[in-house]
This record gives sequence, C-alpha cells and structure tokens, in this order.
Amino acid sequence: MHDGERPWLTELRALFPNDRVSTNPTVLEQHSHDESYHPPHFPDAVVFPESTEEVARLLRFANARRIPVIPFGVGSSLEGHVVPVRGGISLDLTRMNRILDVRPADFLVHVEAGMTRTALNRALARHGLFFSVDPGADATLGGMAATNASGTTAVRYGVMRDQVRGMTVVLADGRVIRLGGPYVKSSSGYDLKQLFLGSEGTLGVITSLWLRVFGLPEAAYAARATFPSVRQAVEAAHAMLRYGLALARVELVDRTSIRQMNAMKGTTYPEADTLFLEFHGSPAALEADLPAAEAIARDGGGTAFEIEREKEARDRLWEARHHLAYAYLHAHPGKKQLVTDVCVPLSVLADGIELARRELEARGLEGGVLGHIGDGNFHTIVMIDADDPADVARAEGLHEALVRYALSVGGTATGEHGVGLGKLKYQAEEHGEALSLMQAIKRLLDPAGILNPGKKIPLPPDESTG
Amino acid sequence: MHDGERPWLTELRALFPNDRVSTNPTVLEQHSHDESYHPPHFPDAVVFPESTEEVARLLRFANARRIPVIPFGVGSSLEGHVVPVRGGISLDLTRMNRILDVRPADFLVHVEAGMTRTALNRALARHGLFFSVDPGADATLGGMAATNASGTTAVRYGVMRDQVRGMTVVLADGRVIRLGGPYVKSSSGYDLKQLFLGSEGTLGVITSLWLRVFGLPEAAYAARATFPSVRQAVEAAHAMLRYGLALARVELVDRTSIRQMNAMKGTTYPEADTLFLEFHGSPAALEADLPAAEAIARDGGGTAFEIEREKEARDRLWEARHHLAYAYLHAHPGKKQLVTDVCVPLSVLADGIELARRELEARGLEGGVLGHIGDGNFHTIVMIDADDPADVARAEGLHEALVRYALSVGGTATGEHGVGLGKLKYQAEEHGEALSLMQAIKRLLDPAGILNPGKKIPLPPDESTG
Repeated sequence: MHDGERPWLTELRALFPNDRVSTNPTVLEQHSHDESYHPPHFPDAVVFPESTEEVARLLRFANARRIPVIPFGVGSSLEGHVVPVRGGISLDLTRMNRILDVRPADFLVHVEAGMTRTALNRALARHGLFFSVDPGADATLGGMAATNASGTTAVRYGVMRDQVRGMTVVLADGRVIRLGGPYVKSSSGYDLKQLFLGSEGTLGVITSLWLRVFGLPEAAYAARATFPSVRQAVEAAHAMLRYGLALARVELVDRTSIRQMNAMKGTTYPEADTLFLEFHGSPAALEADLPAAEAIARDGGGTAFEIEREKEARDRLWEARHHLAYAYLHAHPGKKQLVTDVCVPLSVLADGIELARRELEARGLEGGVLGHIGDGNFHTIVMIDADDPADVARAEGLHEALVRYALSVGGTATGEHGVGLGKLKYQAEEHGEALSLMQAIKRLLDPAGILNPGKKIPLPPDESTG
Repeated sequence: MHDGERPWLTELRALFPNDRVSTNPTVLEQHSHDESYHPPHFPDAVVFPESTEEVARLLRFANARRIPVIPFGVGSSLEGHVVPVRGGISLDLTRMNRILDVRPADFLVHVEAGMTRTALNRALARHGLFFSVDPGADATLGGMAATNASGTTAVRYGVMRDQVRGMTVVLADGRVIRLGGPYVKSSSGYDLKQLFLGSEGTLGVITSLWLRVFGLPEAAYAARATFPSVRQAVEAAHAMLRYGLALARVELVDRTSIRQMNAMKGTTYPEADTLFLEFHGSPAALEADLPAAEAIARDGGGTAFEIEREKEARDRLWEARHHLAYAYLHAHPGKKQLVTDVCVPLSVLADGIELARRELEARGLEGGVLGHIGDGNFHTIVMIDADDPADVARAEGLHEALVRYALSVGGTATGEHGVGLGKLKYQAEEHGEALSLMQAIKRLLDPAGILNPGKKIPLPPDESTG
C-alpha cells in the first residue's frame, strides 16, 4: 500500500468518540518505538480505548479488514515488542487505568490493564498491601502480563505468571473471554491464562487482571556485599538462598556497572563486583539473618558487607540499581542499548556471567553485567551506535554467543524481557518441534494475523498481514 | 462395536514386546475404575510402555485407528478421570518410574511420569531435599501433573502447576515435544506447559517432568487447635496467615470428621471443629511463631491448642488427616464417596463451609467437611450407596448446590481434583465463552478425539470416538 492516510481511517473515526483516535504525528512518533535499539516504525493511527467493549469494537473492525493491531502500554519494552513494523493501529491502553476492586481479605486486586505498577502500589499502601513484581520501569500491568515481566523481587515473590489469578481477554475477532478469577487455585477447564501471559499481544488483548498482592513486610533491610569476582558473589548468594535466609532481592552488579552508577548517581559504592540484597520479615528474624548473611559473604571471600536499615538509604540503593540502564545511556550520549536476558540453571550461572564478561572484552564492547542471580537470569548491557551496522553486528554477536551458551546448558533465550523482534531468530532452536504447536495456536487464535504481527513467534512470510 | 476382542489387538501386540500388552481380566478390572463412585468400564487392553518412544508408537497406532487412549497412573483420581468410558487402551505409565536427574544445586529433579511422589521423596531425602505437593494419595507425578493436584502443603509451597519447570509430552499423533526446562523462568515462546498441566490426559501424554524441589526444613512442628465452630476456626487460620506465621499446612477438620478419625485411627482428639497446623522454619523462628499462633487461636475463641514437636506424633496427626477419606469408607462398609472440591475467595470461605454443613444435614446425608483453608478450597465427603439412584441424586444435589454457590461468588467447581466425568456439566457455566476456545484447542491437539474421550471438556456427541 502507498504511503499517506489509509482509506479505512474515516471508518475508524466514525466508530469512536473524537478523542479516542489520533493521527497526530507526535502521537504516532510516541507509538513508533520502545526503549531498545530496534528501528522505529510509525503506526497509521493510535486508538485510546476506555473500556473492554471499545477494545472489542476496535478488534472486530481491524480483524474484518486485516489491519495490524499492536497493544501498547508505556512503551518500556526492550526488544521492539510495540514497534508497528507493518503499520496499522497502535492500541494504547493507558486510559484503562482504574482499580476495579481491592480485596484485602482475599489478598487480591482487580485492575484494568493500563494501570502502572507504581500507581497500583500507591493505592495499595493504605491497605497495608503491595504488588510485588518490580521490573524497574514503571510499566503497565497489562504490558507486564503480556511479557511475563519479573525483576528484582521474583526470587521471593515470583514472576508475573505467578501473580495473575484471572483476566479478561479480547480475542482477535472481538469475542471477550474471562479466565480464572478471584480464587487461589483451580483444576477446572484448561488453564488458558498462561497462553496469554507472555504472548506479547500476539494472541489477544488483555484488558483486566486479578492480581495477587502481599502484606507489606514488617521490616525490610538492605545490604551490599562486595567480592573479588563475580563467581564468588554468585556462589555466596546461592549459599544464602540454600540457607533459607529471608531474601527478597538478590542482585549482582558487576564492577563496571558500579562505576557507571557512582558516576550518575553520586553514590560512592566501592568499585567491586557487588551483591545488592534485601531482606523482608519480622525485625527479630532479620536481625538473625543479617549476621548469617554476612558470615556467608565473608566465608565466600567477601571484602565488605554494609547494611542499610533506613528506608532512605535503601531506596537510594534500589533506585541506583534500577536506573543502571539509564546510567549507561547517560554516560554514552547518542548511543542505544542492546540488553541480553538469558536464564540458565543456577548451577552454571557463574559460568554464564564469566562468559558475558569475556565476550564484552573480546569484542571491545562497552557495557556490564547485572543479574537476578536467585533466578539464574542475568543481563549484559551493551552500548551501541545504532547507526553503525558494524557496531550493531558486534553486539548481536555477543547476544548470539550468550543465547547459544544458554541453550547448550538447557536454558532459555529470554528470562523476562520477551522475544519481540530481537529473539525471533532463536525460537526454532529453543523450542524445536514445540514451535509448530505454538504456530498452530497462533493461527487458531488469530487467523487473519492482525495481532502484533512479526513478533514473538516466527511464521512463514505468506502468513503475515499489513 | 460388538463385545469381545477387538480386531486391532493382534496388530497392537505385534508392535511391542510381549510383556507390554495385557488383556488379562484382572488387569482390565484394575484399570476400569478410580477411587470414586463413578461406574467402572473395562478397557479393551492395557499397555505398559517403558519409554517416551513406546508411548509415541502407541499413540501413532491408536490415532490412525481412532482408538481411545486413557493415561493411567495409580488410579487414585476422584471424578472418574481414568475410567475408559468408551473402551480402548488404558495406558499405564507406572513402569516409567525412574529418576532421570537430581540437581541439588538447581533445586530440580527430572523424573519419568510414572514415579510416585513418595518414591521420589525417599530418593530426595539423601540430598536434604523434598518434593512438596502432597495430595494424600501416593499418586504418580504424571497423574498429579495431569490433574494439577495440590493438597495440604499448597498454602506454603504452591500447587502442582507451580512446581513443573519443564516436561516431555507426546501429542495425539505421536509427535514428541519438550516444553520449558531446568531453569526458573522464561519469556520465550508461548508457555504451553500450563495447557497440559490439568488437562487430564485429553491433550497429550506427559512422560517426564522437571520438578522444583525444596530444602528439607530445619524444623517442623505440628499443632492442633480446637474451636466451637468452623467459622471461628477459619477466621483464626486466616489471621495466622495474615500475620505471616511460617505455616506449611493449615487444615480444617470438622467435628464429624474428627469422630471418624478417632474411630478408625484410635486417636483421642477432642470432637470439635479443629485446625491441623504445621510450621516449617528454623527452630528459633518456630519457637516464636507457636505462641503467636496460640494467642491468635485463643483470641478467636479457640478452646485448646496442642503442639506436637516430635516427628512421630506429627506423622500420626497427618496420617490421620490423610486417611480421613478411608476412615469414612471404613465406617460405612459397601458405600462409596462423592467428594466436593470447590474453591472460593478466602473472604467467603466460612460461608461456603457453613453451607456445606447445612446441606449435609438438610439432605440427611452422612459425611463431613475438611478444608485446605489457606487456599479457600474445601471438600465435603458424602457417603453414598452407588447402587441407589435416590442416594446418588441426593449427594449430587449437594454437589450442585456447592458448585452453584462457588460460581456465584466468583469461585471454581474444582480446586484440585479436576473435572473427570463428575464436573463436566459445570464447565459451560463456569467458563462461558472461554469454553469455546478450550474446545477449539482440544480439536487442534486431538483431531481424532482419541485422548481420554468423554472427560474434562464437554464436546458435541458427534465429535466423540470409540
């Protein structure tokens, strides 16, 4: 199709109140990219639904005309998930941001998919509750569900998949289904929730979620433990987990990344491979666990162990950790990031992290390693000049080396960021014969191929739309 | 088809070594029923595969000839799941009972589907590990995966769905797929594991599992707390959970059931509505938690609180709890059981349990109530004369009243036992439009309709086989 306004836009505008549809170039630009190095592509229009019924209306319209629909939250994805690579309609869910129900006695909350996690936590605090999943970015809960996000607290509280008790999903043809509900467990029907969790908008559009929430911990202390090597840091962390300490976060930040952190945040953390730890529990239990953690760190070669009991110091520590990707960007103006995300068996995690550091050095790439090491999941942040194909190729070479390593030890190409565009090429190798079943399910649920085409699951070219 | 030997049996025998195929009437009888009141039906043959490849060979054979295949573990299902209602081949997986890999550093074990949970726990003990899911019966791990079993420890460690990191599945056409693997989390591909978990053998045959295991707790204490009413017992238990006590099991046993327990087991527990509790943690943490639990029980109207620190007394207590269904059978010779299994929001659990007791009394039925009350899941054991249609109808009336109640408050017809035959009729009401998607997935994965036909998902009669 030629450039310029699509003929269906007039029809689309007639379907909704005026303020729901935008073709403003600034709005299109905002919906053309995510936070990754993947090239932007403009949608033809952005639609801002305010209800499940409006999402259904939009999908019926798009499905009948084979127009691509790309669900969009805040655009914080890291593999090009929300880039409208074949144009079409970016479906911005951020106006669906209400809490539908808070049930403290059930440890559940019912929210619309466009609510962000920090907005939810602000609302929950008055009930003494919190929502645990913390990927760093202030993503929408629907976006987090669609990528199976996790982050620093997964080691204690689980990943996004573990929190979703129920959901409303609009299918490609506009049918609305409800899966699960406000209960803990079920053996009724097939559990279709997990098909949509992590499906990156390619099987349906999630419009509401029943989420598990937790009581705010009585006490929370943080600590930093420094080590002469990443291997010693990983081994000490795993010893703490085996010992059953009340860890809520166990993060590795390598020495290179500590340097970036200090430079941007003004912190003065020692430039060594460091564990950032957080403990949740009763004050008495934590006062017993902290010396136990320090003893394990020292036995494992640790050189320092600093406890942060005050909320302010703790918040500064985790803010520094969560802003690390931005610290790298800040130090490398004009550059973009490729972030690897493999997850491997815990027993070979140190090997994988050492490989990442060797690959960075051997390829002359700038970056560092950080890891959710209680889960076997680590990231290599690689700074790249997105306009220099040689630079992009070097970074992708590192990415490929790490994915091949992960697959060779029985791991996975992506622990929490998802596939998007960047990990499509590894899907066949990772899933083998199971990929054909994934493709069959994609065809069953989205026969016209309108839902976030070109992402998540590789399909033959003749099955694409747009 | 007429009675007597099926013509395809000669071909089937030629496919396998002699000892793999049986048509011995005793063996057929063993595979004709489960532990429920559902009428038995003989299979035409029982096949005992010893490898994934043999399962694949059997399925290719059966799929080409549209012969029903009913996966079978130890036959401990409670809703007729393994009854070959349309004849065909009972696929007994109990010879596939090996441990393939134990990985203490990864907190993982790789097992064949026919291994039982107690055999696994015997093998894990030497590594200081245990597998947490405990449904009472010594079921096979494959059977537990296929029904999403849970039981007394789910409140702390999660249900079967939470333990499976990876699996091997043979599809209806004999293709073998591998899903997940020995890692904690992934956002790669679609998560198809959860489709097969809880699918009751209707979508594929699980032949191996990567299971999460836990370190044996440093200390484990049990306690019994008695109350004047089930409501007070439930409310006290929920207060203990909100308080964050280190509970590993929180079971309600009503006064009627305590009486059956004492009669069969020779225990002398007071005949009152009782909480059976277990705490896992460090000895120091538990010595702090026990008085806290007792204080909560007393504040909530509790009349007694007895602690069992010794392993022997603790084992006796949980054996009495787990053998409760048998205690009822023992006291009612010749009768069978219908066991309800609804799961409701925690906030209305006491209402649901009170309704169950009223329904028992109003209908003049013998039985009692027990509950996994940390999960909102409770069972009504109802003794019935399976040969007396009026008796069966009365019990089914109670079952229906409880399911309608559960659905009216947003709950589910089955928390852990599964659908089998007995809860088929509730699937349309519970799942609404989502049922059509479940049916479409069943057709996609099992187009010839050979996999455990007549169970789990209602289908139009013309889609059945056999």
